[in-house]
Amino acid sequence: MIVTEEKTNSELIYNGHIIKVFKDEVSLEGKKAIREVVRHKGAAAILAIDEHGDAYFVKQFRYPIGKAILEAPAGKIDEGEDPFDCAKRELFEECGITAKKWTELGPMFSSPGFCDEVIHLFAAQELSFANPDPDEDEFLDIIKIPLKEAYQSLVRGEIPDSKTQILILRGMDMVK
Amino acid sequence: MIVTEEKTNSELIYNGHIIKVFKDEVSLEGKKAIREVVRHKGAAAILAIDEHGDAYFVKQFRYPIGKAILEAPAGKIDEGEDPFDCAKRELFEECGITAKKWTELGPMFSSPGFCDEVIHLFAAQELSFANPDPDEDEFLDIIKIPLKEAYQSLVRGEIPDSKTQILILRGMDMVK
Repeated sequence: MIVTEEKTNSELIYNGHIIKVFKDEVSLEGKKAIREVVRHKGAAAILAIDEHGDAYFVKQFRYPIGKAILEAPAGKIDEGEDPFDCAKRELFEECGITAKKWTELGPMFSSPGFCDEVIHLFAAQELSFANPDPDEDEFLDIIKIPLKEAYQSLVRGEIPDSKTQILILRGMDMVK
Repeated sequence: MIVTEEKTNSELIYNGHIIKVFKDEVSLEGKKAIREVVRHKGAAAILAIDEHGDAYFVKQFRYPIGKAILEAPAGKIDEGEDPFDCAKRELFEECGITAKKWTELGPMFSSPGFCDEVIHLFAAQELSFANPDPDEDEFLDIIKIPLKEAYQSLVRGEIPDSKTQILILRGMDMVK
């Protein structure tokens, strides 16, 4: 049985730059329960595939997990920004890529049990290349890999990022 | 260029039941930067497929996103618990399912830019069914859908949960 939870109180625990953290009280079948919620402005992520079937990824150090991993180009949505505009902006900033053909691959909630982050997924094809324009504090390598090799790496457990896994798996269906 | 970040200070902002939130200071190319980090104990999620190609999902209200969504059975890892044991436990608690055949599908980081949560993914086949044993505060519906229909729903954008998308896409590759 699905039970809707009504907010009865909300406490702002942390008002950060990237996340806000709330400790909310909800009413659940007449009982009180606590919900810890991380609120995030959302993001867009892109699978860019060229005419040879090569895909473009970025590798960057991720402090929360203490290592550098391969990921699809992605970034946070600016205040009021359309997710598609965000995708186009991030693909250019991180990889210097513009695309003539775009496909919406839908939204994904990264971890809806405690977080409202939604990542809007896109595929980009018919690519043109220029110099990237990264943020000042953004250090990353651009890595080109045949999509089919990326899929094999994923199956071996070597591409642990969730949005990147979904984009590679959806991309494999697109190029069949 | 990939740059490793070294922690120079760490402030515990919130020590919650499900998450811990830290505001850390790191050294990045000799400059100071702030990293907001959500730490989580990790989880396991399961794609259970029966001999007819039907898959078993749960639908439950997710307070952070304000609605009920379809998800793969999943749950948090108990202190010291092996991820595979967690997967077996959660599949039984949520769906009353035990399985003879298990396949590891690797880890996924839900959102490594600000969170260390890792979800260990598994497929379960050769299923047996009993009565579920949900947690006292867990309200969910069990929903059986042919895996191929779940894939079509995913493509239409109707299955937004990240772990569930990956499991369905990997499952489609398994049953080909």
